[in-house]
Amino acid sequence: MSDLAWIAVDWGTSHLRVWTMDDAGNVLSRATSSKGMSQLTAANYEGALLDLIGQSLPATGPVPVLCCGMAGSRQGWREAPYATAPCEAPSLAQATRVPTQDARLDVYILPGIKQDKPADVMRGEETQIAGFLAGEPEFDGVLCLPGTHNKWVHISAKEVVSFRTFMTGELFALIGGQSVLRHSLASEGWDNDAFLSAVSEGMSHPASLGSDLFALRAESLLHGLGADKARARLSGQLIGMELTAARPYWLGRDVAVLGEDGIASAYTSALDAQGAMPRAISAEDITLRGLSAAYASFKEAQ
Amino acid sequence: MSDLAWIAVDWGTSHLRVWTMDDAGNVLSRATSSKGMSQLTAANYEGALLDLIGQSLPATGPVPVLCCGMAGSRQGWREAPYATAPCEAPSLAQATRVPTQDARLDVYILPGIKQDKPADVMRGEETQIAGFLAGEPEFDGVLCLPGTHNKWVHISAKEVVSFRTFMTGELFALIGGQSVLRHSLASEGWDNDAFLSAVSEGMSHPASLGSDLFALRAESLLHGLGADKARARLSGQLIGMELTAARPYWLGRDVAVLGEDGIASAYTSALDAQGAMPRAISAEDITLRGLSAAYASFKEAQ
Repeated sequence: MSDLAWIAVDWGTSHLRVWTMDDAGNVLSRATSSKGMSQLTAANYEGALLDLIGQSLPATGPVPVLCCGMAGSRQGWREAPYATAPCEAPSLAQATRVPTQDARLDVYILPGIKQDKPADVMRGEETQIAGFLAGEPEFDGVLCLPGTHNKWVHISAKEVVSFRTFMTGELFALIGGQSVLRHSLASEGWDNDAFLSAVSEGMSHPASLGSDLFALRAESLLHGLGADKARARLSGQLIGMELTAARPYWLGRDVAVLGEDGIASAYTSALDAQGAMPRAISAEDITLRGLSAAYASFKEAQ
Repeated sequence: MSDLAWIAVDWGTSHLRVWTMDDAGNVLSRATSSKGMSQLTAANYEGALLDLIGQSLPATGPVPVLCCGMAGSRQGWREAPYATAPCEAPSLAQATRVPTQDARLDVYILPGIKQDKPADVMRGEETQIAGFLAGEPEFDGVLCLPGTHNKWVHISAKEVVSFRTFMTGELFALIGGQSVLRHSLASEGWDNDAFLSAVSEGMSHPASLGSDLFALRAESLLHGLGADKARARLSGQLIGMELTAARPYWLGRDVAVLGEDGIASAYTSALDAQGAMPRAISAEDITLRGLSAAYASFKEAQ
């Protein structure tokens, strides 16, 4: 078995993922925990990390630990200043070093990217973007990164030119799970025809959102609207609305949607119906690929 | 002191309000509790009512109890079928009688109003409308009833001609209180200039909602956006969006906004800025006025 060379860490709001790596870029082990930023104060990060990788550390010598994500936010382990778009995905040279009590650790947090106007921020996605560009360095187009806060990112000449975040995923979760609509919505289940016609409705009449959503409740009470149809329509209304505002990003551009899970395929299907011909790109381990690219630049600089 | 003649009850999702009344329409006493629909099962309603008015009931003879609101919903005390718009505010003749264990009670629940297409429902607002029309029987125009589920109601010849519900108030509460924006928003405080410019932004670019809201978070992180400004902008974006979709209701019509509290004055101020010249109508005891009108029709029919 090869020797541990460095440790990759994806530290988000609700999750912590680590990979121990050898010098050739092979994964030696993986581990995850639910100790994301929302569960931690600055003093707890080192312990949460050691819980997962403490036994893998050698007795001597510090091991580089490269982190991305919300660990670098103001409420995180230590604030890592943002790079400013337009810029390349930040490398380790711009990382923030975090002092640790355990001398076996040498921790760096990669910066996120900010945009001054319109004001916008990302933390973690810049590393996914770096991972994507490691595979397609000549990509010139738009990346769609579905999630709680969906991001549209214009990429050209290896740079993040501009980006825009929509809190569509968070709105879907809040409205579906906690508003009066929760009584009318399935937690699973999907009707793709209902989804696509709601996308079209949301694109044409975005201002009606508050009324069209209440109509789901009323149709459920009065006309027995199915709970899976209602769920697909809520998603379609919100994504349709977003597609209208994000049109300057996807219209006439090479669009790649990162991921193949439910939410990513909803975006792919909605864009497809608009004739945008998006590609679905596997997102598995894409953050790890981005962290590996940062580590490679680190080694070159040594 | 006059004798108890009947009891008026406004039973909403989160509140229960009762008034004991004499035959001349005077209020003998008032009481409220937090035992709204969301706290009760069908079996608990009678007890919750008796907790408030049990001591006022005479030893003999049933007293008419007139209820409006969510007590008549499927999850309420007993389902009271809806009247269908266009229609007048439902009178006691269409009420649902509810059997009780206590023989001193003679309970009626007034129907709500439904609209088949676009599907919509109200429960409680029809009684506020009746209360308003008791004071202005010749009103021909549009009533705006701000609340969790804001309603626009076209009224002509004493009838509810059509209506439309927007869940704007619920969206404001969910997004402001539970999304990532909660870190950037004040729970109190208001900046009316920021509100009005967000109304205008929401009206012009409703599709950008998901992005404009995330920008509040980003501006707070990057540019120190004030928490009271952020709160006013969230409200303005949502109300502006609604005003665009509700334009067929308020444009060129006599518009009356029911209420003078914070949310009602936000609507009045936003409509005013669009040149709609809305009137602010006192909403105090308007539900009681509606229930009294229903009781008057009940007496006439005896």
